[in-house]
Amino acid sequence: MSIIDTDVHPNPRNADEIRKHLPAPWRDGFAMPRRPFYHNPIHANRLDATPPGGGPAASDPDFLREQLMGTYGIRHPILIPRTFANIHPNPDYGSAVATAFNAWLAETWLEAYNDDGAFKGSITINHHDPLAAAAEIDRWADHPHMVQVVTDSGARAPLGQRQYYPIYEACERHGLPFAMHPGTDGIGGNTLPTPGVPTHYIEYHCGMSLAFQAHLLSFLTEGVFERFPTLRIALLEGGVAWLAPLLWRLDAYWRALRKDTPWITRPPSEYLDEHVRLSTQPLERPGRDEHLLALFDAVGAERVLMFSSDYPHWDFDSPTRAFPSSMPDPLRQRIMHDTAAELYGL
Amino acid sequence: MSIIDTDVHPNPRNADEIRKHLPAPWRDGFAMPRRPFYHNPIHANRLDATPPGGGPAASDPDFLREQLMGTYGIRHPILIPRTFANIHPNPDYGSAVATAFNAWLAETWLEAYNDDGAFKGSITINHHDPLAAAAEIDRWADHPHMVQVVTDSGARAPLGQRQYYPIYEACERHGLPFAMHPGTDGIGGNTLPTPGVPTHYIEYHCGMSLAFQAHLLSFLTEGVFERFPTLRIALLEGGVAWLAPLLWRLDAYWRALRKDTPWITRPPSEYLDEHVRLSTQPLERPGRDEHLLALFDAVGAERVLMFSSDYPHWDFDSPTRAFPSSMPDPLRQRIMHDTAAELYGL
Repeated sequence: MSIIDTDVHPNPRNADEIRKHLPAPWRDGFAMPRRPFYHNPIHANRLDATPPGGGPAASDPDFLREQLMGTYGIRHPILIPRTFANIHPNPDYGSAVATAFNAWLAETWLEAYNDDGAFKGSITINHHDPLAAAAEIDRWADHPHMVQVVTDSGARAPLGQRQYYPIYEACERHGLPFAMHPGTDGIGGNTLPTPGVPTHYIEYHCGMSLAFQAHLLSFLTEGVFERFPTLRIALLEGGVAWLAPLLWRLDAYWRALRKDTPWITRPPSEYLDEHVRLSTQPLERPGRDEHLLALFDAVGAERVLMFSSDYPHWDFDSPTRAFPSSMPDPLRQRIMHDTAAELYGL
Repeated sequence: MSIIDTDVHPNPRNADEIRKHLPAPWRDGFAMPRRPFYHNPIHANRLDATPPGGGPAASDPDFLREQLMGTYGIRHPILIPRTFANIHPNPDYGSAVATAFNAWLAETWLEAYNDDGAFKGSITINHHDPLAAAAEIDRWADHPHMVQVVTDSGARAPLGQRQYYPIYEACERHGLPFAMHPGTDGIGGNTLPTPGVPTHYIEYHCGMSLAFQAHLLSFLTEGVFERFPTLRIALLEGGVAWLAPLLWRLDAYWRALRKDTPWITRPPSEYLDEHVRLSTQPLERPGRDEHLLALFDAVGAERVLMFSSDYPHWDFDSPTRAFPSSMPDPLRQRIMHDTAAELYGL
């Protein structure tokens, strides 16, 4: 089976690889961004993901080809650099960081190390400046290996709100999916995923799926998919099993409260089915597989789920072990390959 | 079948009924609290819940006995006044409002109109002042019809954090469950249920279950049930179907990250099973009942769920129609009566 892995994180070998793409005055102060609190108490990356020649995990394309793609038969990793571009209160700095990571990704993984075209990339934007973000999309949209636009779920407002529409216009203009990935919640003025400040990393980590649910509620109630009928959204690393319960509630209340959002002309779950895709890692696994498969059945998993490993992060999901062994082969084929191939045109 | 309805909202006939229990300087400025935004676009209460003699919905105990208890055979409504005590930045005012509502509830519904002892009440606290809240619990705990402590989920911090422990000490001291109810999120300095500000009522309403998930994550990761081994928590009107997915994720990450919270010595789902109960309204109903019943099975619904109607609110769940008709009778008996009878000692 040919596999598409929809959440893989390449890293620069060092800060200079990014710094060289930053203009003054940003270049001098730049350091590789990291979350300064909620540290993972064990380790952030798979310990075996450090390249033999040294450097950060997932900084060596050849070693990633061997350890991830070779081991599991992954045809296309969708590359999502961890840029933290939207942690900067200064929107010009945030947008410059996004541009620098895009230039680095294009020049290295997508060009210098991509003879076979296996690596597909994501255009990072700083969504705090929607017009600059739209210009950044315009800048990279024609790159042959850029297949989507991405931002982090750390935001100051639910992402379905109208101030972000220049971003979705640009996505539609170029036929690129808009992807959301966790990681900058609660940093640099971004809201946290939970009401109030979570204490421990595990609370913050589990809370990330709440931020995804909130952003999805916003997309589905603001009418984003009525306004942008060809827009597709990829929810990456936000969890999966919460989707059915959320849609059950939203559909029921939409029916009762449709005076509140009259532009939503169909049950919200129908928009979800057409416009939204979710990557699977970290897949919630119950004690009994049939409970998960019931939820897969409830959301039409064959249409909405796409495999992801989150390589090289510590909570990597293996293609061979992430899913119940009782999952039917046609569904497996859809999740491991077909749905992502359709979304990204691969 | 004898039914216990765990979420019923009695209202004062007018503001004077509360005002008379407020000392100076609070008395003069008091008005009946309401949420000043996110108004329900249709109507907040069942239109037929207005008493024949006039006055607010659910302000006439005799009419409530007829319309709710008589119609459905409800033996005990657990009464939860909508006090909004925790919307006040001034903690003294908030605590005074809580005290006034408690005095009103005791004097009217729990005493003057309660010859048969059917009405059971909740001690409202202002959790922003934990020591005052503990004193309020001490004040009312011996009342024969006060069966729990309640606060709203609108908070400034996740409710499992240690600043709230005087409240849980008081609950344990008196053997009273601690209940959480939605409604004040985003008001008076309380955080919203979602990252950023939701736009419409439906988004806010569906987001309430996210606040409940966040508070539950806090209770389960801070070690509240290790510190207070006899504490019981009731999550009222926060939804139900999200519980299994949340616990699957939390259990898996607890196993991997237990260095982060070493005081949690068992899978978090085990603490949930022993310590936490959820009321059912608004019950998420999928298109196919077996999907909901799979989630009931996954969480041990026979131990954790308690029926609630949310009378007199507009989205009332009827005892005869809230649940799938295929739900087994023994489970129905547990949800409609037994679990609540055990929690509240009825």
